[in-house]
Amino acid sequence: MSEQPDDDKVFRALASPHRRRIMDLLREEPMTTGALDARLPELGRCAVMQHLGVLEEAGIVVARRQGRLRWNHLDVMPIKRINDRWIGDYASGAVGLIARLKSELEGAGEATAVTSP
Amino acid sequence: MSEQPDDDKVFRALASPHRRRIMDLLREEPMTTGALDARLPELGRCAVMQHLGVLEEAGIVVARRQGRLRWNHLDVMPIKRINDRWIGDYASGAVGLIARLKSELEGAGEATAVTSP
Repeated sequence: MSEQPDDDKVFRALASPHRRRIMDLLREEPMTTGALDARLPELGRCAVMQHLGVLEEAGIVVARRQGRLRWNHLDVMPIKRINDRWIGDYASGAVGLIARLKSELEGAGEATAVTSP
Repeated sequence: MSEQPDDDKVFRALASPHRRRIMDLLREEPMTTGALDARLPELGRCAVMQHLGVLEEAGIVVARRQGRLRWNHLDVMPIKRINDRWIGDYASGAVGLIARLKSELEGAGEATAVTSP
Protein backbone atom coordinates (compact mmCIF):
# COMPACT_ATOMS: atom_id res chain seq x y z
CA MET A 1 0.00 0.00 0.00
CA SER A 2 1.35 3.45 -0.90
CA GLU A 3 0.01 6.99 -1.36
CA GLN A 4 -3.69 7.21 -2.30
CA PRO A 5 -5.29 10.31 -3.88
CA ASP A 6 -6.98 11.42 -0.62
CA ASP A 7 -4.05 10.73 1.71
CA ASP A 8 -2.73 14.26 1.58
CA LYS A 9 -6.08 15.59 2.84
CA VAL A 10 -6.01 13.10 5.71
CA PHE A 11 -2.48 13.97 6.84
CA ARG A 12 -3.10 17.71 6.50
CA ALA A 13 -6.25 17.30 8.59
CA LEU A 14 -4.29 15.42 11.27
CA ALA A 15 -1.55 18.08 11.37
CA SER A 16 -3.63 20.42 13.56
CA PRO A 17 -3.74 19.78 17.34
CA HIS A 18 -7.22 21.41 17.42
CA ARG A 19 -8.54 18.92 14.87
CA ARG A 20 -6.94 16.03 16.78
CA ARG A 21 -8.72 17.28 19.92
CA ILE A 22 -12.04 17.32 18.02
CA MET A 23 -11.34 13.72 16.93
CA ASP A 24 -10.63 12.76 20.57
CA LEU A 25 -14.02 14.17 21.60
CA LEU A 26 -15.84 12.45 18.72
CA ARG A 27 -14.17 9.15 19.55
CA GLU A 28 -16.15 9.16 22.81
CA GLU A 29 -19.49 9.75 21.05
CA PRO A 30 -21.03 11.56 18.06
CA MET A 31 -21.64 15.19 18.94
CA THR A 32 -23.60 18.12 17.51
CA THR A 33 -21.57 21.11 16.36
CA GLY A 34 -23.05 23.10 19.24
CA ALA A 35 -21.94 20.50 21.80
CA LEU A 36 -18.42 20.44 20.31
CA ASP A 37 -18.33 24.22 20.43
CA ALA A 38 -19.28 24.12 24.13
CA ARG A 39 -16.38 21.69 24.83
CA LEU A 40 -13.90 23.91 22.94
CA PRO A 41 -14.61 27.44 24.19
CA GLU A 42 -11.00 28.50 23.37
CA LEU A 43 -11.66 27.94 19.65
CA GLY A 44 -15.00 29.60 19.04
CA ARG A 45 -17.82 28.36 16.84
CA CYS A 46 -16.41 29.68 13.58
CA ALA A 47 -13.07 27.87 14.02
CA VAL A 48 -14.83 24.66 15.15
CA MET A 49 -16.92 24.72 11.96
CA GLN A 50 -13.83 25.34 9.80
CA HIS A 51 -11.95 22.44 11.43
CA LEU A 52 -14.99 20.18 11.00
CA GLY A 53 -15.04 21.11 7.31
CA VAL A 54 -11.39 20.05 6.89
CA LEU A 55 -12.04 16.78 8.76
CA GLU A 56 -15.14 16.08 6.68
CA GLU A 57 -13.26 16.79 3.44
CA ALA A 58 -10.65 14.22 4.57
CA GLY A 59 -13.34 11.62 5.32
CA ILE A 60 -12.43 11.56 9.03
CA VAL A 61 -15.72 13.13 10.14
CA VAL A 62 -19.11 12.26 8.70
CA ALA A 63 -21.94 14.73 9.35
CA ARG A 64 -25.60 13.78 9.54
CA ARG A 65 -28.35 16.41 9.68
CA GLN A 66 -31.30 15.95 12.00
CA GLY A 67 -33.60 18.91 11.66
CA ARG A 68 -31.51 21.95 12.55
CA LEU A 69 -28.84 19.85 14.28
CA ARG A 70 -25.67 18.63 12.62
CA TRP A 71 -24.38 15.42 14.24
CA ASN A 72 -20.66 14.81 13.71
CA HIS A 73 -19.41 11.21 13.70
CA LEU A 74 -15.80 9.98 13.66
CA ASP A 75 -14.99 7.62 10.78
CA VAL A 76 -11.84 5.69 11.71
CA MET A 77 -11.27 4.15 8.26
CA PRO A 78 -8.66 6.79 7.26
CA ILE A 79 -6.80 5.98 10.52
CA LYS A 80 -6.99 2.28 9.72
CA ARG A 81 -5.44 3.00 6.30
CA ILE A 82 -2.46 4.70 8.04
CA ASN A 83 -2.04 1.63 10.22
CA ASP A 84 -2.29 -0.72 7.22
CA ARG A 85 0.16 1.32 5.17
CA TRP A 86 3.09 1.03 7.59
CA ILE A 87 2.14 -1.74 9.99
CA GLY A 88 -0.34 -3.88 8.10
CA ASP A 89 -3.18 -6.14 9.13
CA TYR A 90 -1.00 -9.10 9.86
CA ALA A 91 1.81 -7.31 11.71
CA SER A 92 -0.60 -5.44 14.05
CA GLY A 93 -0.71 -8.29 16.54
CA ALA A 94 3.08 -8.60 16.65
CA VAL A 95 3.56 -4.85 17.08
CA GLY A 96 0.99 -4.83 19.90
CA LEU A 97 2.83 -7.66 21.62
CA ILE A 98 6.18 -5.85 21.31
CA ALA A 99 4.63 -2.64 22.70
CA ARG A 100 3.23 -4.51 25.72
CA LEU A 101 6.53 -6.32 26.35
CA LYS A 102 8.39 -3.00 26.13
CA SER A 103 6.06 -1.30 28.60
CA GLU A 104 6.26 -4.28 30.98
CA LEU A 105 10.06 -4.32 30.79
CA GLU A 106 10.18 -0.57 31.40
CA GLY A 107 7.82 -1.03 34.34
CA ALA A 108 10.06 -3.81 35.69
CA GLY A 109 13.12 -1.57 35.18
CA GLU A 110 11.52 1.23 37.15
CA ALA A 111 10.49 -1.15 39.92
CA THR A 112 14.11 -2.40 40.13
CA ALA A 113 15.43 1.14 40.16
CA VAL A 114 13.14 2.00 43.06
CA THR A 115 14.03 -1.04 45.14
CA SER A 116 17.81 -1.13 44.45
CA PRO A 117 20.06 0.54 47.05
CA MET B 1 -5.44 8.25 25.18
CA SER B 2 -5.05 11.90 24.14
CA GLU B 3 -2.29 14.24 22.96
CA GLN B 4 1.24 13.28 24.08
CA PRO B 5 4.17 15.74 24.13
CA ASP B 6 5.78 14.30 20.97
CA ASP B 7 2.57 13.88 18.95
CA ASP B 8 2.90 17.21 17.20
CA LYS B 9 6.33 16.19 15.85
CA VAL B 10 4.87 12.92 14.56
CA PHE B 11 1.93 14.54 12.76
CA ARG B 12 4.12 17.30 11.32
CA ALA B 13 6.53 14.64 10.07
CA LEU B 14 3.66 12.74 8.43
CA ALA B 15 2.31 15.87 6.74
CA SER B 16 4.92 15.71 3.93
CA PRO B 17 4.33 13.34 0.98
CA HIS B 18 8.12 13.07 0.54
CA ARG B 19 8.56 11.86 4.10
CA ARG B 20 5.66 9.40 3.68
CA ARG B 21 7.42 8.08 0.56
CA ILE B 22 10.64 7.62 2.56
CA MET B 23 8.62 5.69 5.17
CA ASP B 24 7.14 3.50 2.41
CA LEU B 25 10.68 2.63 1.23
CA LEU B 26 11.91 1.93 4.77
CA ARG B 27 8.90 -0.26 5.44
CA GLU B 28 10.31 -2.68 2.86
CA GLU B 29 13.75 -2.80 4.48
CA PRO B 30 16.27 -0.63 6.38
CA MET B 31 18.26 1.47 3.92
CA THR B 32 21.42 3.56 3.98
CA THR B 33 21.00 7.26 3.28
CA GLY B 34 22.85 6.76 -0.03
CA ALA B 35 20.46 3.99 -1.11
CA LEU B 36 17.43 6.16 -0.20
CA ASP B 37 18.93 9.04 -2.16
CA ALA B 38 19.31 6.75 -5.20
CA ARG B 39 15.59 5.80 -4.96
CA LEU B 40 14.53 9.47 -4.67
CA PRO B 41 16.51 11.27 -7.40
CA GLU B 42 13.84 13.99 -7.64
CA LEU B 43 14.61 15.10 -4.07
CA GLY B 44 18.39 15.24 -3.95
CA ARG B 45 20.66 14.17 -1.11
CA CYS B 46 20.32 17.37 0.90
CA ALA B 47 16.50 17.18 1.02
CA VAL B 48 16.60 13.44 1.80
CA MET B 49 18.86 14.14 4.78
CA GLN B 50 16.61 16.97 6.00
CA HIS B 51 13.51 14.76 5.76
CA LEU B 52 15.33 11.95 7.60
CA GLY B 53 16.20 14.44 10.35
CA VAL B 54 12.52 15.38 10.80
CA LEU B 55 11.49 11.70 10.83
CA GLU B 56 14.22 10.86 13.36
CA GLU B 57 13.21 13.78 15.59
CA ALA B 58 9.65 12.38 15.56
CA GLY B 59 10.87 8.87 16.49
CA ILE B 60 9.60 7.42 13.20
CA VAL B 61 13.08 6.69 11.85
CA VAL B 62 15.93 5.27 13.91
CA ALA B 63 19.45 5.65 12.48
CA ARG B 64 22.31 3.27 13.21
CA ARG B 65 25.86 4.05 12.15
CA GLN B 66 28.04 1.31 10.69
CA GLY B 67 31.43 2.80 9.83
CA ARG B 68 30.73 5.56 7.34
CA LEU B 69 27.24 4.25 6.54
CA ARG B 70 24.07 5.45 8.22
CA TRP B 71 21.37 2.78 8.20
CA ASN B 72 17.82 4.13 8.52
CA HIS B 73 15.18 1.90 10.12
CA LEU B 74 11.41 2.52 10.34
CA ASP B 75 10.01 2.46 13.89
CA VAL B 76 6.26 1.86 13.66
CA MET B 77 5.49 2.61 17.32
CA PRO B 78 4.39 6.22 16.61
CA ILE B 79 2.00 4.81 13.96
CA LYS B 80 0.69 2.29 16.47
CA ARG B 81 0.01 5.17 18.90
CA ILE B 82 -2.14 6.87 16.22
CA ASN B 83 -4.10 3.64 15.78
CA ASP B 84 -4.51 3.21 19.54
CA ARG B 85 -5.62 6.81 20.03
CA TRP B 86 -8.64 6.64 17.74
CA ILE B 87 -9.26 2.96 17.12
CA GLY B 88 -7.71 1.20 20.11
CA ASP B 89 -6.24 -2.24 20.65
CA TYR B 90 -9.57 -3.91 21.19
CA ALA B 91 -11.52 -2.27 18.39
CA SER B 92 -8.83 -3.00 15.75
CA GLY B 93 -10.24 -6.44 14.98
CA ALA B 94 -13.79 -5.12 14.59
CA VAL B 95 -12.67 -2.25 12.34
CA GLY B 96 -10.67 -4.69 10.19
CA LEU B 97 -13.74 -6.92 9.86
CA ILE B 98 -15.94 -3.96 8.86
CA ALA B 99 -13.36 -2.85 6.27
CA ARG B 100 -13.26 -6.34 4.74
CA LEU B 101 -17.08 -6.61 4.71
CA LYS B 102 -17.31 -3.17 3.06
CA SER B 103 -14.81 -4.09 0.36
CA GLU B 104 -16.54 -7.44 -0.25
CA LEU B 105 -19.95 -5.74 -0.50
CA GLU B 106 -18.55 -3.14 -2.87
CA GLY B 107 -17.01 -5.94 -4.93
CA ALA B 108 -20.37 -7.76 -4.98
CA GLY B 109 -22.13 -4.51 -5.95
CA GLU B 110 -19.78 -4.03 -8.89
CA ALA B 111 -20.25 -7.64 -9.99
CA THR B 112 -24.04 -7.15 -9.90
CA ALA B 113 -23.78 -3.92 -11.84
CA VAL B 114 -21.79 -5.68 -14.55
CA THR B 115 -24.18 -8.62 -14.90
CA SER B 116 -27.51 -6.76 -14.57
CA PRO B 117 -29.29 -5.78 -17.83
